[in-house]
Amino acid sequence: MKLITLLTDFGLQDGYPAIMKGVIWGIAPEVQIADLTHSIPAQDILAGAVALGRAAPYFPPGTIHVAVVDPGVGTQRRAMAARIGECYFVGPDNGLCTVLLDQAAGAIQAVQLDRPRFWLPEVSHSFHGRDIFAPVAAHLANGVALDELGSPLSEVVRLIIPQPTPLAAPGRRGWRGQVMHVDAFGNLATNFTRQHVPEAGSPRVRIAGQEICGVANTFGEGQPGELIAMLDSSGQLSLCEVNGSAARRLKVAAGEPVELYWQD
Amino acid sequence: MKLITLLTDFGLQDGYPAIMKGVIWGIAPEVQIADLTHSIPAQDILAGAVALGRAAPYFPPGTIHVAVVDPGVGTQRRAMAARIGECYFVGPDNGLCTVLLDQAAGAIQAVQLDRPRFWLPEVSHSFHGRDIFAPVAAHLANGVALDELGSPLSEVVRLIIPQPTPLAAPGRRGWRGQVMHVDAFGNLATNFTRQHVPEAGSPRVRIAGQEICGVANTFGEGQPGELIAMLDSSGQLSLCEVNGSAARRLKVAAGEPVELYWQD
Amino acid sequence: MKLITLLTDFGLQDGYPAIMKGVIWGIAPEVQIADLTHSIPAQDILAGAVALGRAAPYFPPGTIHVAVVDPGVGTQRRAMAARIGECYFVGPDNGLCTVLLDQAAGAIQAVQLDRPRFWLPEVSHSFHGRDIFAPVAAHLANGVALDELGSPLSEVVRLIIPQPTPLAAPGRRGWRGQVMHVDAFGNLATNFTRQHVPEAGSPRVRIAGQEICGVANTFGEGQPGELIAMLDSSGQLSLCEVNGSAARRLKVAAGEPVELYWQD
Repeated sequence: MKLITLLTDFGLQDGYPAIMKGVIWGIAPEVQIADLTHSIPAQDILAGAVALGRAAPYFPPGTIHVAVVDPGVGTQRRAMAARIGECYFVGPDNGLCTVLLDQAAGAIQAVQLDRPRFWLPEVSHSFHGRDIFAPVAAHLANGVALDELGSPLSEVVRLIIPQPTPLAAPGRRGWRGQVMHVDAFGNLATNFTRQHVPEAGSPRVRIAGQEICGVANTFGEGQPGELIAMLDSSGQLSLCEVNGSAARRLKVAAGEPVELYWQD
Repeated sequence: MKLITLLTDFGLQDGYPAIMKGVIWGIAPEVQIADLTHSIPAQDILAGAVALGRAAPYFPPGTIHVAVVDPGVGTQRRAMAARIGECYFVGPDNGLCTVLLDQAAGAIQAVQLDRPRFWLPEVSHSFHGRDIFAPVAAHLANGVALDELGSPLSEVVRLIIPQPTPLAAPGRRGWRGQVMHVDAFGNLATNFTRQHVPEAGSPRVRIAGQEICGVANTFGEGQPGELIAMLDSSGQLSLCEVNGSAARRLKVAAGEPVELYWQD
Repeated sequence: MKLITLLTDFGLQDGYPAIMKGVIWGIAPEVQIADLTHSIPAQDILAGAVALGRAAPYFPPGTIHVAVVDPGVGTQRRAMAARIGECYFVGPDNGLCTVLLDQAAGAIQAVQLDRPRFWLPEVSHSFHGRDIFAPVAAHLANGVALDELGSPLSEVVRLIIPQPTPLAAPGRRGWRGQVMHVDAFGNLATNFTRQHVPEAGSPRVRIAGQEICGVANTFGEGQPGELIAMLDSSGQLSLCEVNGSAARRLKVAAGEPVELYWQD
């Protein structure tokens, strides 16, 4: 059983993701399709790349991820398909697969989608998700080889993913980072991971003028309404209000600076 | 593999669409189900008909579209199933399939759903999606013939879909139309299609006191923040703000008058 | 064909439900998955239990319901799986299956999920939906026996579901109850059922200072904009504005007191 996932900034109200499913099932009737999310903020390629990177590791080998956050649709930006480690990516060559590439252990092989026989007969200027990416993913699921789908691509566009930078002040060490993602609970996922958190000592987190002491293991260690820092289920340091919304409380969004520090 | 789609005004929060899936899979376990959309504005049959017409052409022949925007549920309005060209429609006989009918090339055959043996044993007064339409669609997917499901229906309810009217003024020609659909990006799809747009000359669009010059081929032809007119992926003339929301900028909704005109 | 449903308070924006599907399909590739809803208000176990109870009766025997509204994740709360009548429940032992238990006709058998060989290799402190419940449900779908998955559980947590209480006043009889659920249309489902509504006489409903006379059978019996009471498709007495939103009109939410009464 082949598995295709869809990630877009289309929203669910207009039926665009369903149209992609219609196209896929018209070509590959037996495939399973999972909606990763269609709520990526409009044209926010970085948010799409991060969401794809968080979800992909939990899908079985061979899964085909179709991602469409595509402000350059209809322009010169290239369309691509790639094998990235154990999964496949189909979408615009605009950086959407950056986090997948960063995580990939195995080989990477990419092609530019330049062979219209694998597309819908008519290609619009504004909906390549339907006209190019969905049919290409379906053909891939049907067993068409990657290098049949287009010409080799030696280089693909990569986004610069914000990384923490060392923080040095008298008597203090740590990292300066930022909020990468705000989830529906209002939890703030930062770009700090386990490797940034010291094993011993008592690290502190500063965000929006507030300080959080220590890193908890579970929500259960805090009181309802308490602001805590914990390593979340993706291994990122997250700032959370127990049974509440840290985003609403702190009035912050993705991009907000965060400091993680401890006494030297 | 049989394919059923669902389109409703139920929203996703209450689980009504999932209940329909449970009923379908209880009768036809192997069927694939795609959610077209469940965000049709409550009781807006015209919006449902338009959304169904936009999506259906991209589904494989034989797809069964179950559509439930049904303000008359529990009253005398009839329930129907129909073969419309290459697809099937199951839902209330209230005009929801109007655009499907307008698009259909092939034969049309309709029945009134008046045979309770194809329904759930108990039929409520308010949720025929669950009690009648879902089981009927599942039986259809299982191979029950259309004319088994009910008595022939010689006429079905059709909505009047607003059409552009010619615009005549000294030295000017063109069309008077309206916004038919506002998508999640804030793009405004009008009822002008390729046939209304002159091949040569320099057409202009007027909406909400603003003028747009020319018809672009892609978003890429405009600058971020620019208001453009382009033929969208469904072949409708759409008014869009590049990387923005035309709906928010112009403060307009479906039904807003639009003029398309050029010098004679 | 095995069927798994998912009900959570995760929302759809972050891809958490899709990640659960990836885990399930990695273990049980052929299973069908239906999203019941992911819009349960955050941490509202009672709302989750009610939504699960409304949907489950419409799924075929053997369906596995995975429900995750889990404020106690990472603490001492137990994880459980159970056969409840003809269906299965997998989720936290925090009362989420209470309504399923109340409805169950057949036998009940429950186990505590204490055998890590049926989980993902790494278990986080905050996402047991992905790490424990999804893989356990997939193994169950693959035919692993319930009592293989964990040690027997003799007692499970049950919520107290608010029940109507008799109303006695001079010359008046009836019930005092409450709104249990507000759906996307703004219909108010109360905890009154058919058994609370007298067959004869003229019952009245009082809510938020308004009175509704009689119990209608269908929306069609009221005028657009009229406030009516009717037995809804789940058998609950619901208060509805015809073609409108009773919740918006009355400015009420779940928990609002409601009286149903008639002349003695």
